[in-house]
Amino acid sequence: MRDLLGRLVGSFGRTASQRSAERLAQRLRLLASQRGEASGAVLARRAVGLYGRLDKSGRRHLFDVLARDFSPDPKEVLDAAAAYHHDASAANLARLQRVTEPLRQEIFRRMNMAPGGTAMLLALRTELLSAMRDDPALVVVDHDLAHLLASWFNRGFLELRRIDWNTPASILEKLITYEAVHEIRGFPDLKRRLERDRRCFAFFHPALPHEPLIFVEVALVDETPCDVAPILATQSAVEDPMRARCAVFYSITSTQAGLRGISFGNFLIKQVAEDLHAELPNLKVFATLSPIPGLRPWAEREAPGVAGASDSAAPTGPHDREALEALAAFYLTREWQGSQALDPVARFHLGNGARLERINWGADTSSKGIAQSYGMMVNYVYDLAMVERNHEEYVNRRHVVCSGAIDKLARAAEPLLARTPTSPSAPVPG
Amino acid sequence: MRDLLGRLVGSFGRTASQRSAERLAQRLRLLASQRGEASGAVLARRAVGLYGRLDKSGRRHLFDVLARDFSPDPKEVLDAAAAYHHDASAANLARLQRVTEPLRQEIFRRMNMAPGGTAMLLALRTELLSAMRDDPALVVVDHDLAHLLASWFNRGFLELRRIDWNTPASILEKLITYEAVHEIRGFPDLKRRLERDRRCFAFFHPALPHEPLIFVEVALVDETPCDVAPILATQSAVEDPMRARCAVFYSITSTQAGLRGISFGNFLIKQVAEDLHAELPNLKVFATLSPIPGLRPWAEREAPGVAGASDSAAPTGPHDREALEALAAFYLTREWQGSQALDPVARFHLGNGARLERINWGADTSSKGIAQSYGMMVNYVYDLAMVERNHEEYVNRRHVVCSGAIDKLARAAEPLLARTPTSPSAPVPG
Amino acid sequence: MRDLLGRLVGSFGRTASQRSAERLAQRLRLLASQRGEASGAVLARRAVGLYGRLDKSGRRHLFDVLARDFSPDPKEVLDAAAAYHHDASAANLARLQRVTEPLRQEIFRRMNMAPGGTAMLLALRTELLSAMRDDPALVVVDHDLAHLLASWFNRGFLELRRIDWNTPASILEKLITYEAVHEIRGFPDLKRRLERDRRCFAFFHPALPHEPLIFVEVALVDETPCDVAPILATQSAVEDPMRARCAVFYSITSTQAGLRGISFGNFLIKQVAEDLHAELPNLKVFATLSPIPGLRPWAEREAPGVAGASDSAAPTGPHDREALEALAAFYLTREWQGSQALDPVARFHLGNGARLERINWGADTSSKGIAQSYGMMVNYVYDLAMVERNHEEYVNRRHVVCSGAIDKLARAAEPLLARTPTSPSAPVPG
Amino acid sequence: MRDLLGRLVGSFGRTASQRSAERLAQRLRLLASQRGEASGAVLARRAVGLYGRLDKSGRRHLFDVLARDFSPDPKEVLDAAAAYHHDASAANLARLQRVTEPLRQEIFRRMNMAPGGTAMLLALRTELLSAMRDDPALVVVDHDLAHLLASWFNRGFLELRRIDWNTPASILEKLITYEAVHEIRGFPDLKRRLERDRRCFAFFHPALPHEPLIFVEVALVDETPCDVAPILATQSAVEDPMRARCAVFYSITSTQAGLRGISFGNFLIKQVAEDLHAELPNLKVFATLSPIPGLRPWAEREAPGVAGASDSAAPTGPHDREALEALAAFYLTREWQGSQALDPVARFHLGNGARLERINWGADTSSKGIAQSYGMMVNYVYDLAMVERNHEEYVNRRHVVCSGAIDKLARAAEPLLARTPTSPSAPVPG
Repeated sequence: MRDLLGRLVGSFGRTASQRSAERLAQRLRLLASQRGEASGAVLARRAVGLYGRLDKSGRRHLFDVLARDFSPDPKEVLDAAAAYHHDASAANLARLQRVTEPLRQEIFRRMNMAPGGTAMLLALRTELLSAMRDDPALVVVDHDLAHLLASWFNRGFLELRRIDWNTPASILEKLITYEAVHEIRGFPDLKRRLERDRRCFAFFHPALPHEPLIFVEVALVDETPCDVAPILATQSAVEDPMRARCAVFYSITSTQAGLRGISFGNFLIKQVAEDLHAELPNLKVFATLSPIPGLRPWAEREAPGVAGASDSAAPTGPHDREALEALAAFYLTREWQGSQALDPVARFHLGNGARLERINWGADTSSKGIAQSYGMMVNYVYDLAMVERNHEEYVNRRHVVCSGAIDKLARAAEPLLARTPTSPSAPVPG
Repeated sequence: MRDLLGRLVGSFGRTASQRSAERLAQRLRLLASQRGEASGAVLARRAVGLYGRLDKSGRRHLFDVLARDFSPDPKEVLDAAAAYHHDASAANLARLQRVTEPLRQEIFRRMNMAPGGTAMLLALRTELLSAMRDDPALVVVDHDLAHLLASWFNRGFLELRRIDWNTPASILEKLITYEAVHEIRGFPDLKRRLERDRRCFAFFHPALPHEPLIFVEVALVDETPCDVAPILATQSAVEDPMRARCAVFYSITSTQAGLRGISFGNFLIKQVAEDLHAELPNLKVFATLSPIPGLRPWAEREAPGVAGASDSAAPTGPHDREALEALAAFYLTREWQGSQALDPVARFHLGNGARLERINWGADTSSKGIAQSYGMMVNYVYDLAMVERNHEEYVNRRHVVCSGAIDKLARAAEPLLARTPTSPSAPVPG
Repeated sequence: MRDLLGRLVGSFGRTASQRSAERLAQRLRLLASQRGEASGAVLARRAVGLYGRLDKSGRRHLFDVLARDFSPDPKEVLDAAAAYHHDASAANLARLQRVTEPLRQEIFRRMNMAPGGTAMLLALRTELLSAMRDDPALVVVDHDLAHLLASWFNRGFLELRRIDWNTPASILEKLITYEAVHEIRGFPDLKRRLERDRRCFAFFHPALPHEPLIFVEVALVDETPCDVAPILATQSAVEDPMRARCAVFYSITSTQAGLRGISFGNFLIKQVAEDLHAELPNLKVFATLSPIPGLRPWAEREAPGVAGASDSAAPTGPHDREALEALAAFYLTREWQGSQALDPVARFHLGNGARLERINWGADTSSKGIAQSYGMMVNYVYDLAMVERNHEEYVNRRHVVCSGAIDKLARAAEPLLARTPTSPSAPVPG
Repeated sequence: MRDLLGRLVGSFGRTASQRSAERLAQRLRLLASQRGEASGAVLARRAVGLYGRLDKSGRRHLFDVLARDFSPDPKEVLDAAAAYHHDASAANLARLQRVTEPLRQEIFRRMNMAPGGTAMLLALRTELLSAMRDDPALVVVDHDLAHLLASWFNRGFLELRRIDWNTPASILEKLITYEAVHEIRGFPDLKRRLERDRRCFAFFHPALPHEPLIFVEVALVDETPCDVAPILATQSAVEDPMRARCAVFYSITSTQAGLRGISFGNFLIKQVAEDLHAELPNLKVFATLSPIPGLRPWAEREAPGVAGASDSAAPTGPHDREALEALAAFYLTREWQGSQALDPVARFHLGNGARLERINWGADTSSKGIAQSYGMMVNYVYDLAMVERNHEEYVNRRHVVCSGAIDKLARAAEPLLARTPTSPSAPVPG
């Protein structure tokens, strides 16, 4: 019905934007055809140009058309599936794959052939993700685009580059724009973060040579830090990196909204840890200093007696500290959402095979830090020799590998809770 | 049966090579699992290492396993297709795509994450293509790998580079190794082909920075050549390229057996023509000097009276010349194999939108030239403004766009033939 | 006497710094000897290291020693000169040159062999120039060092590089530090100066790859500007450089105190004008927008009736404007100091062969602009075809080539002056 | 007289070439003047262009003019020297230096400002050195040019680059052209010399980025070699460089005739030894395998009884071997020419501070090897810790530092000689 109505309206009341979008859709169909194979570069260039000239309404209309008109034909699919079921031959498998792949995928592949095509597809997906909030049916388009991008941004095609003060300003400027964890207050602040006792590494893709896709900031220090302020201080003395014993990953930021859901952080941290280890043999510990973004809302819900009303200031008495640390330990090690840790940062590092090492009271006393986690932060430790085993524990046994101290704290939290924990699993001291 | 027998034999008599291949297959399954997502880089590195240590028999066994055990499950596919047929929802489409994609694809994607992964996959496909000659069932593996490689080696990811005498010797050496059309007899010969009145361009992929994937050799000359010898002469004077009026594409070579069927030639020729046009505004004509590889066998079959016995020397009388040129024109413009020109070189250039311009008697008097085409070669002309229209004619109307002279020659051939032509279409003077 | 006293004091009361300086001087003598030839790299590295560890007093003492002990021997020089006068043979000339060249030159050459040697010599000269203010006898050291640096920083060894937003931040930071004409207020201001309708070029020397030696900032605009504010506005729209008709050199800055007196500005402006002309054929005019730094002090001295007391505000009435413009024209075209124009900026551009084109009232209303030149600025025009002829006029005939309007203004100034002009030459309309 | 006659002939019978050369000489005078300062780049470009168009006779005439007309004025020199002798003031020293420096030097500096100027000056000197064989008076021109080039090609301005198979072919081709010690028979031979157990390093100057100025070839082997054949074998297996214990400098070649007398070999060998030592810590010995070019002619003259007639074949008996090795040891350690070793290769390595280690019988059985040194070669060892001490011994005490075995051999040679040795010094076992 929606379709029919749309078409009827279309013939009378389409706007100029919509007509532009439909003309582009026709060209895209052509681009994905055999003719596109021969004149692909020219047609792709034109299509990318036309897309760039669509206004917002035109782009939204194009997404609609892509979702509606470029999916596989259910009848063809069923016939091909039946044939494959009857005889799982190579020919039947090829036919099945051909009719099952939406034409959209080939369209995106061919648009990518134009200069600037990859950047355009990332911009398109950024807008598509936003449009999906209004129109969930667009998910079929996103599914195809995400599938392609995950394949194209394969780790094997990414280049790890060190970012320092000799990096072009155009790239450094992007770090300032994108940094999500600890805001960079202009070039002088950034310069301190790129001195020789700090490091910054990013993944780049050859098709976007000036765009850091994800970057990690590292401080080379004497010992695992319990406080982020000294790391961010812009006036601190620059230390000799050869003497550092601990590499702290204090910020990791993905930059491309158009790559949402395609994760490189895991590869980045491990590669950087390996490379730093080779360059600076005195480094013994690779750890993060990480926020606990979901702690306070959870604690106020699950242990209201301890955690206080959500609009009060942070509790500060010594008793309070013990209780809140215990709750943090419990939250991080025993609260799950399906097969994943409840806290999103914990989920990332534990899923990567890190060990939960230490809770740091008063580590981030900014208002954001107080509001998230009563000012606490945690260290996750990457022990490259143990990463696989830890990951196994986490994925296969739903055990969070943690230090003995955290395990003890977590056990102390049980009496404080208003209900039984969601996870039957105990954390595993590692 | 084959399968069952294989498994029975397997349990008793598997060789060490086969056991290695099966261990690797198990690891590949693991690599494609969720665990592979977290520890992917490490597992991929190991898998690539293991593959490198398999002997030929082990590799063949691995291909068997990949073909046999990693295809989609027909029952799951049928159920998903039925659900999609019943309700073409986003969720059902996602499920359909998930169960239809063979696990092999994800395996190959993850192997690619290791350093050297892309090169390894090209080597694997080279061997797979060879193994397919003995065991056509392996085509299902090739289908998946070819699909991925076509996506990864998308034009948008290729870099066009000029090759000249300042190019690293390691790359130049590869030109000597790969050149398929006109053999390069060592570095001094190559040097002449890279002087300023000659050009060489190649596509590179960022994951294989030292491997030219395809390269084209161009001579910048006064007029469309009718003879290849002056172009290849190593002692010729170097001319001023600013004065040249014609760019001759005299050789185009694909280098990677592992990329068979994934064509870049079309993009390469057009991009090079555009770039040369911008650099050297005096260039008016972009043409090839191409062989006619299938002419003589065809002529001996179709016009035995003219063409003579296959083991005789080339005919040389003036009458012969006219007759043979007519046959060549007919063969190139009116002989089809399905929707494609019969001659493979014609198929490539006509499919790209080139125009068939001129037949050159005595253009290649090497024994190979005589054996293929009585020593004739042809010029295809790339007129960038007409390429799309020519391509349309060729693809949609099965018309070969050619010069009036060739059209006339082709018509003169009809009485010489032993039978009616296969194509109802007449060539179209363009 | 000074010397003798110094030596006496030396034997009793030399400080530790002085003793370090003297040890270094001994090593420098060794470095310049035959032994230095064989072990030069090692000895040079040590000498550069020792110099780096001298404190200010030690460095001053070293300069003293270099001035005192490393000059040619007057007796040897006289003998060699007499021999050359008697017989101007090759051998006598070689001997003369050998004994005339101070050992300091060879010392500096050999220090340059160490890594970082060139940068060290520039730092040494910077300090030497400062020390010369207290002790003019050090000029003999400077003479040798300046001679060497002028030879080493020969135009043929400099590399012209465009500076833009893709330039490393470490280099951009130096532009901010060094810019002397129109202060750059941080990276955002700099970014506007590097957009595509602005250009920045610098000379670099291979031994100092991260140090711009001199840089020029250019605005690409519609017409010769009469006001610097629009050029420096950070919020202005970015224009299409292909449409610009005028390239304005609005700032040129030398960065290295250690290269004082070694001029590259002449080469830089002409090379940039040539390159821009080739890139942007629509550019018709290459002009500066320049300050008149010495105008106001001169006018207050020479035409006190017009120019007013030095501490009053700028005169603003229309009569005043005419009179002050006339004085500016007179000052720039007819006031000389020896064989050079009196105004230092005029001296630079006229010496380069530029033409004085236009006086711009109210072009720089900053307090500095008012204090220097009543807010006026001037345009010098570089017409590459006329540069040599203009230069000839200036150097050989002491004529300033200027526009007719300026010539007329200058003549109008004569009655305003308190005395007869210093120069008999009239400006030459060009 | 020669001058006067030349001028008389000049006015009547100068050839066109000579007139071109004289016009150029006039322009060079202009270039070196104040006008050249302002319009230097343009004038220099023209001068370099004119020089390029002179024929051989014109160039020879230009050299004559440069020698004759651009030397310092003896009267001015004498006056300045007298003034300096009377009062060694800074001003008098500056005046002395100004009148003593030939105008030629400034001319060469200004020609260098043109694009390609440095290369042109090297070509000019190459021809000048050849012309000097006919006309020794040209040495005054060479003296100035050599002085400048030595200053410009200062070690501090040279860049050490590794040459390998990824180096541009245009540079590799030059190695083949220039290699003087062991001829490179085409690219395949060169490729073997660039595998990972071989190394090649060269110095480059920024003004000649494609010209290796000097290059050294190194083999990484198990032990100090006594035979050059295995090193040059093109079919040998490539070894793991990490296991090598000895780096053999088996060939060192200067490429630029225009830099004759300006030595970089000393710096190159030591820098390469340092760098290899840092990269490959297992390397314990840095040694050469060097020819003894002057041995046989010397031996036939000094010990005719042993050495045989010069046109006979090489002696081969065991007695002969002992006697010839003794003569070689004597020749290398005790035969001097002034303050230098008589043998040119010994002079180079001993002057660099190497130790003479071992005589290798039958090390080079090529006809050249037999003719030079009865097929013997020697190892010089570079022990970086001892280089300075060895050099001191050689330069200050005229002692050749050598192994005990060589010392013993040298002593055994004395009875074989027809006369008393020229050197009173005994070699010093080191």
